[in-house]
Amino acid sequence: MVSETEAREIFESNIHFDGLNICKFSPEIFQAWRDGGIDGVSCTCGLWEGFRESIANVVQWKKWFEEHSDLITQAHTVQDIRNAKLAGKTAVLLSWQNTAGIEDKLDYLRVFRDLGVRKMQLTYNTQNYSGCGYTEINDGGLTGFGREVVDEMAKLGIVCDLSHVGPKTSRDVIEYAPAGKPPCFSHVLPSGMKEHPRNKSDELIKLIGSKGGFVGLSQFGPHMKKGNESTIDDYVEAVDYIIGLIGEDLVGIGSDSSEGHGRPSDFMAWCNMDKGYARKLTPWGSQKVVKPLGPLAERQELAQAMARAGWSKEKMVKVLGENWLRYLEKIFGQ
Amino acid sequence: MVSETEAREIFESNIHFDGLNICKFSPEIFQAWRDGGIDGVSCTCGLWEGFRESIANVVQWKKWFEEHSDLITQAHTVQDIRNAKLAGKTAVLLSWQNTAGIEDKLDYLRVFRDLGVRKMQLTYNTQNYSGCGYTEINDGGLTGFGREVVDEMAKLGIVCDLSHVGPKTSRDVIEYAPAGKPPCFSHVLPSGMKEHPRNKSDELIKLIGSKGGFVGLSQFGPHMKKGNESTIDDYVEAVDYIIGLIGEDLVGIGSDSSEGHGRPSDFMAWCNMDKGYARKLTPWGSQKVVKPLGPLAERQELAQAMARAGWSKEKMVKVLGENWLRYLEKIFGQ
Repeated sequence: MVSETEAREIFESNIHFDGLNICKFSPEIFQAWRDGGIDGVSCTCGLWEGFRESIANVVQWKKWFEEHSDLITQAHTVQDIRNAKLAGKTAVLLSWQNTAGIEDKLDYLRVFRDLGVRKMQLTYNTQNYSGCGYTEINDGGLTGFGREVVDEMAKLGIVCDLSHVGPKTSRDVIEYAPAGKPPCFSHVLPSGMKEHPRNKSDELIKLIGSKGGFVGLSQFGPHMKKGNESTIDDYVEAVDYIIGLIGEDLVGIGSDSSEGHGRPSDFMAWCNMDKGYARKLTPWGSQKVVKPLGPLAERQELAQAMARAGWSKEKMVKVLGENWLRYLEKIFGQ
Repeated sequence: MVSETEAREIFESNIHFDGLNICKFSPEIFQAWRDGGIDGVSCTCGLWEGFRESIANVVQWKKWFEEHSDLITQAHTVQDIRNAKLAGKTAVLLSWQNTAGIEDKLDYLRVFRDLGVRKMQLTYNTQNYSGCGYTEINDGGLTGFGREVVDEMAKLGIVCDLSHVGPKTSRDVIEYAPAGKPPCFSHVLPSGMKEHPRNKSDELIKLIGSKGGFVGLSQFGPHMKKGNESTIDDYVEAVDYIIGLIGEDLVGIGSDSSEGHGRPSDFMAWCNMDKGYARKLTPWGSQKVVKPLGPLAERQELAQAMARAGWSKEKMVKVLGENWLRYLEKIFGQ
């Protein structure tokens, strides 16, 4: 049994990587990461934006990396994340929740890869050129263009994320992706614990695991077994549920923290309309949502909850960050 | 029986409208329309192009309308087409074979409507935000965004063309389109005479007819019953086949003439790659293709073939142009 003190020590001396934040990014958030001991974080810097706006988003981050170099640094490699921890900073992996930013140009993948956008969700909630999001009535699966996108991402070393992607497109991508370059679900919950179209089935989780892919667990009360009564211990139980399906080496954290944004807020409303302005997609933004992981600055609590659940030190170290780093290394290459 | 002389007279004194040309547009083509007695023509001025390139294409046409005002004029209304014939000119209806030009912005539909792009194919061969083209492996049908596009096109008085659209998306659009604003197949052949994914099934043709939609017949030897042995009389037989399904009031000509482009040519190759540069979609551009309607300047031959098939004057007048005009009026409104 790991004690409370040992859990604190384990958390502090090992890498904690969070596979998805969509915060109202600011120096306050960067400080919260430091306070919470978050060493690396995948940050959404593209969702509905096209090429130009996506470039502008990257430029904003480059300015932040300069202006707040005491708190954050950009991660292009896994080593950058390890170095950040040693330097007492948080490594930011620029990420997209859509491929809208490449518009209809495969070549733009390389542009953004070179700028450091190393993780992209194939589509966000709705249909795009590559495939189908989970809110569409019908999911036609991975398109011909989508195959080219998946191939090119694999070649360029960009993580392909399927969290908000529809079930047929998800399955198609997992089966189509080149060997050794499996996709991930960076921020999902299991539908085996709560049936919801945003959650992933045991079958899909086992399939992605069978290819060496990855599953990060998000925290969204309404999609968890106990709904908004869920606590951090229920979160750890959900992590254990996924581990029961695919083992403890392919699982990590993807908190989906939206800290700093109000609820509801203009930003939430924008996310929740197709392409940022068209029809509303889900009740999200209006419903009550408990997030059991709590504020970013209190992320150490997660290690305490893992200890309460009887986790070994080794399992904690892997799920807190080392599993993510091993998966990222697989995709990024050297 | 209509005699050869009478057929010539009928052709000359009535409107002939061609529901699709994708020629290498130039003063030579404009002159060929005049020589062939083509009074109105739907001209492709957008296929893979995004917003800016589509604007540039419109601007090129506006220049041509000025520079060649002795031969051509722009059609915004059906009356414009009738006036053009009286003035001895050809009326050009600017048209798209894709909705790539609006990118992800519903509002751009209004911009292009105001510029005179009054007919748009929902998608060209592959998946886009609205639906699926016929070359994709799976057709997931009309998307949520596609429903908004179809609604907005109906509101703005833009013809929705489904010629290259996949079977499920075609069915969905026909069933979804607002009453009184049915879509069309502007340039297709019947799969009842030759099985091919680009051709339309009897079932879909009857469905579009049941809504007051429209079917224009294209000429593409390899997709016709006798293949490249097909003659202009076989073309008239195909028109009669469609008339047998939906009557003689909803059928017209959509020649899909690509006159002036070589075969193969850079233009054909561009059309035939997804988004103009990605994977090749069909054998088109390399295969031998007989086009039984012959050169644009010899379009009068069509009336002779109709006479040979024993058509009445009334049927000839309708299929040569009046049916198209009545359908366009239905969509454009007043």
